[in-house]
Amino acid sequence: MNQRPVWIKHAAQLATIAGGPAPRIREGMSDLGIIEDGSVWIEEGEIRAAGTTAELEKRYGSRAAEAEIIDASGRLVTPGLVDPHTHIVYGGSREKEFEMRLEGATYMEIMEAGGGIHATARMTREATEEELFEQSFRRLDSFLSHGVTTVEGKSGYGMDLETELKQLRVMKQLNERHPADLVPTFMGAHAVPLEWKGREDEFVDLIIRDMLPKVAEEGLAAFNDVFCEVGVYTPGQSRRILEAGKEHGLLPKIHADEIEPYGGAELAAEVGAISAEHLLKASDVGIRKMAEAGTIACLLPATALYLREEAARGRDMIDAGVPVAVSTDCNPGSSPTTSMPLVMNLACISMRMTPAEALVAATLNAACAINMQDKVGSIEPGKQADLVMWDIQNYQELQYLFGVNHVMNVWKKGKLVISKEGEIRTQSMPAY
Amino acid sequence: MNQRPVWIKHAAQLATIAGGPAPRIREGMSDLGIIEDGSVWIEEGEIRAAGTTAELEKRYGSRAAEAEIIDASGRLVTPGLVDPHTHIVYGGSREKEFEMRLEGATYMEIMEAGGGIHATARMTREATEEELFEQSFRRLDSFLSHGVTTVEGKSGYGMDLETELKQLRVMKQLNERHPADLVPTFMGAHAVPLEWKGREDEFVDLIIRDMLPKVAEEGLAAFNDVFCEVGVYTPGQSRRILEAGKEHGLLPKIHADEIEPYGGAELAAEVGAISAEHLLKASDVGIRKMAEAGTIACLLPATALYLREEAARGRDMIDAGVPVAVSTDCNPGSSPTTSMPLVMNLACISMRMTPAEALVAATLNAACAINMQDKVGSIEPGKQADLVMWDIQNYQELQYLFGVNHVMNVWKKGKLVISKEGEIRTQSMPAY
Ligand SMILES: [Zn+2]
Ligand SMILES: [Zn+2]
Repeated sequence: MNQRPVWIKHAAQLATIAGGPAPRIREGMSDLGIIEDGSVWIEEGEIRAAGTTAELEKRYGSRAAEAEIIDASGRLVTPGLVDPHTHIVYGGSREKEFEMRLEGATYMEIMEAGGGIHATARMTREATEEELFEQSFRRLDSFLSHGVTTVEGKSGYGMDLETELKQLRVMKQLNERHPADLVPTFMGAHAVPLEWKGREDEFVDLIIRDMLPKVAEEGLAAFNDVFCEVGVYTPGQSRRILEAGKEHGLLPKIHADEIEPYGGAELAAEVGAISAEHLLKASDVGIRKMAEAGTIACLLPATALYLREEAARGRDMIDAGVPVAVSTDCNPGSSPTTSMPLVMNLACISMRMTPAEALVAATLNAACAINMQDKVGSIEPGKQADLVMWDIQNYQELQYLFGVNHVMNVWKKGKLVISKEGEIRTQSMPAY
Repeated sequence: MNQRPVWIKHAAQLATIAGGPAPRIREGMSDLGIIEDGSVWIEEGEIRAAGTTAELEKRYGSRAAEAEIIDASGRLVTPGLVDPHTHIVYGGSREKEFEMRLEGATYMEIMEAGGGIHATARMTREATEEELFEQSFRRLDSFLSHGVTTVEGKSGYGMDLETELKQLRVMKQLNERHPADLVPTFMGAHAVPLEWKGREDEFVDLIIRDMLPKVAEEGLAAFNDVFCEVGVYTPGQSRRILEAGKEHGLLPKIHADEIEPYGGAELAAEVGAISAEHLLKASDVGIRKMAEAGTIACLLPATALYLREEAARGRDMIDAGVPVAVSTDCNPGSSPTTSMPLVMNLACISMRMTPAEALVAATLNAACAINMQDKVGSIEPGKQADLVMWDIQNYQELQYLFGVNHVMNVWKKGKLVISKEGEIRTQSMPAY
């Protein structure tokens, strides 16, 4: 059955973020391409035109009867948000560990009770593909409900070939069967598996010899990520893994300088990583090198909040010319959230980014960080019709009225997938 | 028309927080009165019984056909949340000021552009009652959508008799015409009005002589609040206002020790305040005195986040025996949010409260902070049927899966006022 065209009309602000598929830097991050009284014409899942309502009246007025008309009066419309860094597919849940920690349990007590990343690794190894699919499908629903229409997902809770492949296959199924796009990253080097402790180089060999070829052969990942951190993988080990991935066509990403400055930002620039993640402790030299190389900084302020760390220096990075993206880092240990709206709020509150910069970081720059800029991240003819209508009047309110998910409607490839219009029951505003 | 009874059945966890109307302290704050496979019977807007589904089957099974049955399988059910500290009724909006500040504007530039509290005072003075009603009605909708069924609201953006009365009358109308309960507080001494700068004592005289009697005479407020802070009102001026309010039957509240330690916590205990607010810089002596007096600490971690301040010492206060409540502080300058779920999350993340303590602080203790403990704050026979069904399985997840509004259904006085069941369109979980 053919879908009817959709005509979104009269948006108080249409933030197109139009202007080409390159990541935005410096002042470019402030340019939202705002159209007042904005309109979008959607057909066959694609954006066909975006402009003022008057402009689209001229062009499509004669076809109005054919289209489903959405009145966006008084509301903000933006591209669907893009989350470029998640660990969305995992087994089990760790809310009891969260409680134990707040009740004063020590690290050892939590480990003995089966906590930490190795607990998730165990539960992910034990879970069936079907169980992982169902848990993660619901998580994708939650992303969608927060206006996120494209999500990156990493393996890395297996850290053995079988489980890594299981996670990636689940992502493939999710991408095919959930409305959201899910872009897969292989991350065999997410931690040092207990059974390889003290033999990290051998595990790196295993990743390079066995895992990467298999992942590439099955076409299960677009990116190759590694946790480069003191006590986990050294810059040398990280470089080996990332260079090996490149030979299989996997673009490098790197969890860098989260806990200690370790040359991760520098390494990201040197290996030509598409993005570097976290960067809480990135050095000035590393930031400069990233700016020169055009490496996207993928910043995770919800993780910093959750861990009570000082957030990354988003303001400084933008001023230094680094293209900045933001992400939830959705994962069961350090950021169990799906709220990109909160992440944008924190980009402003904790990293002193402006409301416009936060929105670009969560749309176009995030799309660039996962190589999806030709399809998503802005409202331009030819792109997927991934759009959000927010129950607020302007983009400043999106960040100012914080902690609230202002999503009203979400369209994915032109289909209405989220609508909150029936939420309030039994009441309407009475006359005063 | 008579309402049908409502029978909520099979809740995975029913957190009753039952056990009497006194504020909880110390270990009492961890006792949620959890019932597994829980049931609640609601009739005529009231809770008639809460227990296991088996218990309620025995008692009400014969009347099942009469009732609307809600299947809460796999879900958490709690009392409606209570927000005991907001400035919900105000004119205008200040998102442009938020942006200016992040773009690097100085304090003086913002003031010249008409920013700050005096901007809100001006816009509130200029707004009609109807305009204030409509803005605030929508804000109350947003509270409801976050599971908040009872809200305290303060005047204080008038700081002249006419506007203070206007704000309080709007609150009276909101309380009567919106499903949520709105409990009013007079706060003439919210700042020093520009026209009284340097003549604070005279303005205090005016509050005592003209405002308090009029507010009390019209029955427009239950509480009397003051901003006791260096450069605003001294402890001496604050005490005069609060003592004068007591003579009119208004219970004292006090914005205390937010920016500098100023003896506010001590003063709260001395004047018998029902609660003291903020307390970021409260002294150890002040905390001890509050514990002895039973003064409720009303903590506002979203405000601390927004202002990039260290949150109040919630953990220490609980350990010292202070009854702790939490609140959004919803206001246009320092906490433009309506999300009590985020506030509970921050109580855990920023103040090291446990998931159970955070929930008690947002329900029963919050109800006690606004003298509503006989009607709301727990699930017990005789109380209003204010309940929330959350789309999660247990109370730990409510705080662990942070930044997300997990509300599925909200009932106010037995009526379903929020339901999110139709939010996801066009998809259901496919078989794997
Ligand atoms: Zn990560
Ligand atoms: Zn306040």
